[in-house]
Amino acid sequence: MAVNPNAPLTITGYKWVPDFAQGFVRDLRPRWACEEIGLDYAERLIDVMKKPEGYAAEQPFEQVPVLDDEGVMMFESGAILLHLGKKDERLLPKDPQLRATAISWVFAAYNSIEPSINELGNIDFFAKDEEWARLRRPGLVEFLGARLDKLAAALGEKEYLIGRFSAADIAMTEVLRPAREADAMTVRKSLCAYVDRCTARPAYARALDAQMSAFRNNPPPASAP
Amino acid sequence: MAVNPNAPLTITGYKWVPDFAQGFVRDLRPRWACEEIGLDYAERLIDVMKKPEGYAAEQPFEQVPVLDDEGVMMFESGAILLHLGKKDERLLPKDPQLRATAISWVFAAYNSIEPSINELGNIDFFAKDEEWARLRRPGLVEFLGARLDKLAAALGEKEYLIGRFSAADIAMTEVLRPAREADAMTVRKSLCAYVDRCTARPAYARALDAQMSAFRNNPPPASAP
Repeated sequence: MAVNPNAPLTITGYKWVPDFAQGFVRDLRPRWACEEIGLDYAERLIDVMKKPEGYAAEQPFEQVPVLDDEGVMMFESGAILLHLGKKDERLLPKDPQLRATAISWVFAAYNSIEPSINELGNIDFFAKDEEWARLRRPGLVEFLGARLDKLAAALGEKEYLIGRFSAADIAMTEVLRPAREADAMTVRKSLCAYVDRCTARPAYARALDAQMSAFRNNPPPASAP
Repeated sequence: MAVNPNAPLTITGYKWVPDFAQGFVRDLRPRWACEEIGLDYAERLIDVMKKPEGYAAEQPFEQVPVLDDEGVMMFESGAILLHLGKKDERLLPKDPQLRATAISWVFAAYNSIEPSINELGNIDFFAKDEEWARLRRPGLVEFLGARLDKLAAALGEKEYLIGRFSAADIAMTEVLRPAREADAMTVRKSLCAYVDRCTARPAYARALDAQMSAFRNNPPPASAP
């Protein structure tokens, strides 16, 4: 467990979130990266309903995570993954080609895969009773499916995206995981096996437990829906 | 003009694309970065309808750009922008906080802004006669508008995202530019002024001209729609 209140690195997460979001908040991504390399981090847990005064100066969209690395502040979990990756070649290999490929895959997760998965989540969860969602879903699933087929082809028989585990797998697993049980994923067995392989890593379990333990220890705010 | 067939760096783009895509293909992003720092690059122009044999091994989604930097290959324009940024502090400042903020904004462009703008483009262009698009548009514009308000607040009175120009502005401008004339943008005058300021840079004009010159010089393929 890398959570250590005296660590020079601080990750901002939430004290509490509604059930559907528990285990899926994006501070899991840097927590996982820290756990993979045994890097201690402190937690700053904020109220999801009432952000700290001036928080937009740290995170323009008032989301989490934010990283404070001895006074250097970063936002966007993808940027934070690359920053942590520079500290340890287990996250970003020193070999120039492997490193370039890993960074390419981090962006691919965030820009070529996640947007469609987020929209599918929006359709299946938040907008599930809306007419547009019913009409839109087949085309979106077709588009996402084509992307996932190309991802599966690129992964091939490899265990991880660049062969060995890297920050790219943290990014891609966390992007795919919210759709793990959706039709677009369950029919693509090699991608399900990939997500299951990545989430079977002890570092993932420790990171998930660290996020969940905050929620176990903090009651919902009085204003929670 | 940094296009030089003998340069050690090669950017892959398209020989030709349909009118609506001309000036918006993503090889513009690394071309612009190269022009900002006077870094020569060679072009490899491929057929949009018929990709080279084995191209998926270079770019899993069979898109452009791909960067070949003396044999090290990268895909995803965001990853390529960061790679080019490491070569010159005009793209990514050496100051640790400015650099961290610039990289955070590159990811914000690709992950927090572009997905909604892409979906708005999808609705207004490819799906404009579909019922789901008509029903979906108001909610999407509201979501995107809230994001753009936060972006405008973060930009404030600054000329560029981190104060001075950086790779973050290449990413953000190119993400915003396809929506420059959409209602969600035109009502946000500071963001329009920001895009106009960035695209007024001579390096942008040279990059755009380089992309367009390929299209001027190559006929549509026989199979083009």
